[in-house]
Amino acid sequence: MCVLGLGLIGGSVMRAVAAAGREVFGYNRSVESAQAARFDGFDAGENLGEVLTRAADSGALIVLAVPMPALPIMLGHIRDVAPDCPLTDVISVKTAVLREVDEFGLTANFVGGHPMTGTAHSGWTAGDARLFVGAPWVISVDDHVDPDVWALVMDLALACHAVIVPARSDEHDAAAAAISHLPHLLAEALAVTAGEVPLAFALAAGSFRDGTRVAATAPDLVRAMCEANADQLLPALDRTIDQLTHARAALSAHASTAELVEAGHAARMRYDSFSRPEIVATTIGADGWRKELAAAGRAGGVIRSALQVRDSRG
Amino acid sequence: MCVLGLGLIGGSVMRAVAAAGREVFGYNRSVESAQAARFDGFDAGENLGEVLTRAADSGALIVLAVPMPALPIMLGHIRDVAPDCPLTDVISVKTAVLREVDEFGLTANFVGGHPMTGTAHSGWTAGDARLFVGAPWVISVDDHVDPDVWALVMDLALACHAVIVPARSDEHDAAAAAISHLPHLLAEALAVTAGEVPLAFALAAGSFRDGTRVAATAPDLVRAMCEANADQLLPALDRTIDQLTHARAALSAHASTAELVEAGHAARMRYDSFSRPEIVATTIGADGWRKELAAAGRAGGVIRSALQVRDSRG
Repeated sequence: MCVLGLGLIGGSVMRAVAAAGREVFGYNRSVESAQAARFDGFDAGENLGEVLTRAADSGALIVLAVPMPALPIMLGHIRDVAPDCPLTDVISVKTAVLREVDEFGLTANFVGGHPMTGTAHSGWTAGDARLFVGAPWVISVDDHVDPDVWALVMDLALACHAVIVPARSDEHDAAAAAISHLPHLLAEALAVTAGEVPLAFALAAGSFRDGTRVAATAPDLVRAMCEANADQLLPALDRTIDQLTHARAALSAHASTAELVEAGHAARMRYDSFSRPEIVATTIGADGWRKELAAAGRAGGVIRSALQVRDSRG
Repeated sequence: MCVLGLGLIGGSVMRAVAAAGREVFGYNRSVESAQAARFDGFDAGENLGEVLTRAADSGALIVLAVPMPALPIMLGHIRDVAPDCPLTDVISVKTAVLREVDEFGLTANFVGGHPMTGTAHSGWTAGDARLFVGAPWVISVDDHVDPDVWALVMDLALACHAVIVPARSDEHDAAAAAISHLPHLLAEALAVTAGEVPLAFALAAGSFRDGTRVAATAPDLVRAMCEANADQLLPALDRTIDQLTHARAALSAHASTAELVEAGHAARMRYDSFSRPEIVATTIGADGWRKELAAAGRAGGVIRSALQVRDSRG
């Protein structure tokens, strides 16, 4: 396996895969991080051409773990040096990554991924072999995905002890908008609103602290994820503004917040009792396997141990 | 001291005051709770007339710790039996309580209070003598408040080991709208929005859980506090809707969330570095003491040990 980018996520993938006993090598642009990885006993280089040639020679699964802005450069080199390698990524917004991969003609070997975990820190030294234990790892089941590449990515996520959620890229992005990007914008708006009320910070406690915790995230990171997912974030934002506007009207007209409060409580209760059945019966590569996995993931299904793969030579 | 209502807050006040070595007796409407309090060694009765007569005879500070809907009945009895007792409350929305107290002609002896703490549980058995330790306890410094009653309420809050924030009732309510009631409505709207997106609950993690935690609160409690504070909640809600609407327009027009994200981050950073200087120099009852305390509270000032009280007989 070949990991490109050895920051928090890529560096953790490298450690987790090595801990699982798999062969793994990697690349990082900065000499310091590559040296730090080598110092920790990992097989890391800072010469992209060499690393990709090695990946091409061994047919390694390439894991894209670079920030979104570095993606086109990386894909250009892969197209030139290792175009036949199976390819995945661990970057958040899935349709944006898929669009870039498409532009470089690498879609046939690509299966997108998104391990949904992280810490407040970054860089090689922040990495941890156990970062993915029990975390959801989305693997895309878009119409184009190849069963054999999919199985490789499944093995990668399971080697990292993640829980796999199969999902279409567009559905992943819509969900990420609702559960991650929208909460960031609400937290920012709450912080600004309270910041304008003279006594608010003096009295702020639990619900304010919880409600604005993610507003402490670096603005560049928040902007990057929100803006890359604008297509999906806009409808989520519209829906929320619409609900708040209706609640405002009801509160003003008949002093009631019943509709919003009851709907919100019911939704949160549904979330608390949301079950996570294990997906066991699907055979990767069998007729309709992509649709079957997408439906199962939507219903809360997760993959905890390797599914059967249809023999592609059969 | 006389505590009316021995639920979570009133029951905790009784325990804390007793633990501080003060004489305290109380009333609860339900026989079961009064019995439970007596069983735990406290001086509690379920005959309101008897309890109030005792308060009147001893000139005890009466602490109103009943739910808002029970307030008028309680105030009617106080007016009839113990109209000269100093009076405070531990109910949340301060202007609404003050309005009721005004209607019963009890304003002269009244100083509102609000200990800003709680748990998910309720009733006598949920009480805890240490519930108020380190928690902000707002004491109102409205134009009418009497220095001697104020000093009694200060002593109560300090006996409970709370940190006193002096504030005008209207400013308290505006702050509570921004830091407590608004976050509840945002949490409800987030839960509803995410609940409508097929894959959202399957992927929900940290920022969704934090952002919707308070949506798990019983709808009746959320409604009661939001609706009682509608006057202050409406402008806070308007401000938030306005910011989200602007962010939506900027995201749609030029794919940027910079303005909201940077303002939100800056506000949250201001909150994290908000200092809490101790108020030590004010003399309660001296010229302009109410305005002085209101300004100090607005600036983050807190009272951690008893302030001097001007000798009212001097």
